[in-house]
Amino acid sequence: MSATLAEICAALGGVLHGEPGLSITRLASLEAAEADSLSFVAQARYASQIASTRAGALIVPPALLDQAAARGACIETPDAYLYFARLTQWWQARRAAAEQAEGEAIHPSAVIHPKAQLGEGVTVGAFAVIEAGVVVEPSASIGAHCVLERRAHVGARTRLAARVTLGHDCSVGSDCILHGGVVIGADGFGFAQHQGEWIKIEQLGAVRIGDRVEIGANSCIDRGALEDTVLEDGVKLDNLIQIGHNVQVGRNTAMAGCVGVAGSAKIGANCTVGGGAVVLGHLTLADGVHISAASVVMRSIHQPGQYSGVFPLDDNRSWEKNAATLRQLHRLRDRIKALEKQS
Amino acid sequence: MSATLAEICAALGGVLHGEPGLSITRLASLEAAEADSLSFVAQARYASQIASTRAGALIVPPALLDQAAARGACIETPDAYLYFARLTQWWQARRAAAEQAEGEAIHPSAVIHPKAQLGEGVTVGAFAVIEAGVVVEPSASIGAHCVLERRAHVGARTRLAARVTLGHDCSVGSDCILHGGVVIGADGFGFAQHQGEWIKIEQLGAVRIGDRVEIGANSCIDRGALEDTVLEDGVKLDNLIQIGHNVQVGRNTAMAGCVGVAGSAKIGANCTVGGGAVVLGHLTLADGVHISAASVVMRSIHQPGQYSGVFPLDDNRSWEKNAATLRQLHRLRDRIKALEKQS
Amino acid sequence: MSATLAEICAALGGVLHGEPGLSITRLASLEAAEADSLSFVAQARYASQIASTRAGALIVPPALLDQAAARGACIETPDAYLYFARLTQWWQARRAAAEQAEGEAIHPSAVIHPKAQLGEGVTVGAFAVIEAGVVVEPSASIGAHCVLERRAHVGARTRLAARVTLGHDCSVGSDCILHGGVVIGADGFGFAQHQGEWIKIEQLGAVRIGDRVEIGANSCIDRGALEDTVLEDGVKLDNLIQIGHNVQVGRNTAMAGCVGVAGSAKIGANCTVGGGAVVLGHLTLADGVHISAASVVMRSIHQPGQYSGVFPLDDNRSWEKNAATLRQLHRLRDRIKALEKQS
Repeated sequence: MSATLAEICAALGGVLHGEPGLSITRLASLEAAEADSLSFVAQARYASQIASTRAGALIVPPALLDQAAARGACIETPDAYLYFARLTQWWQARRAAAEQAEGEAIHPSAVIHPKAQLGEGVTVGAFAVIEAGVVVEPSASIGAHCVLERRAHVGARTRLAARVTLGHDCSVGSDCILHGGVVIGADGFGFAQHQGEWIKIEQLGAVRIGDRVEIGANSCIDRGALEDTVLEDGVKLDNLIQIGHNVQVGRNTAMAGCVGVAGSAKIGANCTVGGGAVVLGHLTLADGVHISAASVVMRSIHQPGQYSGVFPLDDNRSWEKNAATLRQLHRLRDRIKALEKQS
Repeated sequence: MSATLAEICAALGGVLHGEPGLSITRLASLEAAEADSLSFVAQARYASQIASTRAGALIVPPALLDQAAARGACIETPDAYLYFARLTQWWQARRAAAEQAEGEAIHPSAVIHPKAQLGEGVTVGAFAVIEAGVVVEPSASIGAHCVLERRAHVGARTRLAARVTLGHDCSVGSDCILHGGVVIGADGFGFAQHQGEWIKIEQLGAVRIGDRVEIGANSCIDRGALEDTVLEDGVKLDNLIQIGHNVQVGRNTAMAGCVGVAGSAKIGANCTVGGGAVVLGHLTLADGVHISAASVVMRSIHQPGQYSGVFPLDDNRSWEKNAATLRQLHRLRDRIKALEKQS
Repeated sequence: MSATLAEICAALGGVLHGEPGLSITRLASLEAAEADSLSFVAQARYASQIASTRAGALIVPPALLDQAAARGACIETPDAYLYFARLTQWWQARRAAAEQAEGEAIHPSAVIHPKAQLGEGVTVGAFAVIEAGVVVEPSASIGAHCVLERRAHVGARTRLAARVTLGHDCSVGSDCILHGGVVIGADGFGFAQHQGEWIKIEQLGAVRIGDRVEIGANSCIDRGALEDTVLEDGVKLDNLIQIGHNVQVGRNTAMAGCVGVAGSAKIGANCTVGGGAVVLGHLTLADGVHISAASVVMRSIHQPGQYSGVFPLDDNRSWEKNAATLRQLHRLRDRIKALEKQS
């Protein structure tokens, strides 16, 4: 695929400096760019790479324009990273349009229950299973090997990659992306103890996912015990994330890979949770709380801010010494107290 | 679906106080309950919510009966949470019975090897693959897109959700539930090093899972290197859990989401492992050991009890200071010693 | 399946001491071995078990030969563990050959695009989906329910277990194994922030995997944002591992289960990463770096060696005291300083 700088600016705006007919066949990083590539410099701290990149053209903010123009074609725009984000979307959509023409809308191998409703422009991949009462809104796309259980609901333009399960009575809003292997609506982990045995509490709630939500590969969102587990609009989850039953995640909150959120936690809007962090159950995070990677949240947090709790990495010998001493830390404190009394 | 209080008590026992014909259409939490809902109060500390809930009826222990009866219908029972657990099972079974009547027993798209044996009342979903030598006991249910490799064995009334792999020669007992995306019997992670390369050790064991075991979505139980990996009766695993090769997990032990258990660990009966915890390989946990969430078990534990090891969360600035100091902890101890000698 | 000691030595070498016609039907550990079993003793510290094992024959290094020969048949070889590793491969291959004869090469239910190319000796399982432009090299095997998106490439003799996704334009080298549920080439986690919303950055790179790579069940390798995510030859990944976009993993590096590697990290050759460890993004690990289980790498590491950072496990009461004191550690240091000034 290729596009000229003129075509790009026509679609996405920006002020073009240089040859409008220059043909771009690749978006690339500054290091990997060649004469056919379009790259971007969003921040002044990367300015030193402008001279050395071999990119055919650069997207730059006004502050870097002179430097960039001195070496070749460029597109000037207030927020170069945002421009670049939109460019990737436009690029991908053009590429997809060219490819999609080849495919069938509803693959003949799909098993679609007569009581399911598929909107206009829906595509369904090979071996998808769509059960009774499922509703798929217009222009949604269901990947190969997906299973949509009874009464599941998929919003308009939402895309399920291959091998996704959307459990019974669960709903996904519009403009969402669910990546491969995602399981929405498995049972929450709920048991009552009775004479040393675990008695299952059937999970009677569902999962409700808002609009513009993205969920990474092999992540799991469990159905609620009684009421629904809820992801609000704009939530972004990376791969291999576990969201327990009854959890609520507020608008535009984002979580990196391998995060685990235990049951009934209530996470506010505009939060971020770093990779591998753990949020325990039945607690509340206010809006705007940011949890560092691999940290463990054991109590509710009511003030926005950045929170951390990670044992610092060290060479193994130093770590062993410090970790051993850590187990006596409370007694060390008492010894300091005693010394203070003496002095 | 709906049921009267009289029907519920006929099925599950308890002493009914109030209108037997009251129709319940939903089980709900105290906060979300409406006039058509049945809710429960298991512990005295939630008693304050009895007055404010809008639930049509409440399940309560004798100690809370007077307070509950003062506001409306209730079911009196010694252990309200256990009663509620059984109610969810009864409710789910009734709902499932109504829906199952619609489905086919063996979906025509399933590929079932002529040398597989399916018991009475077995259901098989669309696109399931059942290889040679597989045995499925009566009333088990195999979800859509499941793969049962050669000589796999599924016990009576066990349910495999959609998209489960049960590897060759692996067995699951009766009354188990395996949720979506579970992989039983992938190769354990075993290599010999030779001249800087990793030489694969083929994993010749299998996985043996007892009765009444539940395994959460996208969890993985690896096959043993030589002997089998074993989960005993009543084990409950949440989502995204990794169980390495040769691991043994004792009766009724439960693990929350994202736990990792490394190869050849031997975990006792009636243990609990909190979410995100890591258990290293080749060690032993006694019966009745409880590991807190996100803790790391690096040595065998021979005494029952609760064990923890998590860096406490703090605001980022405080954490940075304390974490930096932690790297000097051993030297701090020496400085305290020196001060003690002086004094 | 069975083999005589003579057949085994003919195939794998070693000096046979004892009855060549002894029939072996099982490879087993020293503890579980019976008269029909072949076991191994690689290290002197297990020598005490030689007398008590019931194994029919033992694989031993020269140093243990006398002890082993005193009790029965044995195979003498310089590196008994390596010999055992190769024996498991030979054993598995023989077993597989016997079983494969039963299966069809290309299952009739597979959906294979006319513009896909399958080499000689390729096997394709039931319900596999192979899209346009896919190339599968000779003797590769594609499991049931796999999805190979357009232009994916699978090397010779590589084996994809059931339920694997290989994303568009992604490539896997020769002699690789991808276990069940693996997702290669889901979108990396990339967004630009704009007025409180997350704007998706389409991920235009792919994933390139070298030769002899093994990837465990339900692991995820994301596609790069612009350039490719790369796993070099000989990399071994366990189950439930997350590799973010643009990550590079060097030759023969191995990672245990549940590891998360964030975007753009660059990990050297011959590294090991213990289970549950987290490697943050945009950092570099030199060749020969070894990260202990459950440790968190927050900065680049330029020297080979073993690195650790884990809060030591303790009984819950001791942990609570020490963790609470840890939050005052920086102040404790100041108090020690003050005491030192006084003295």
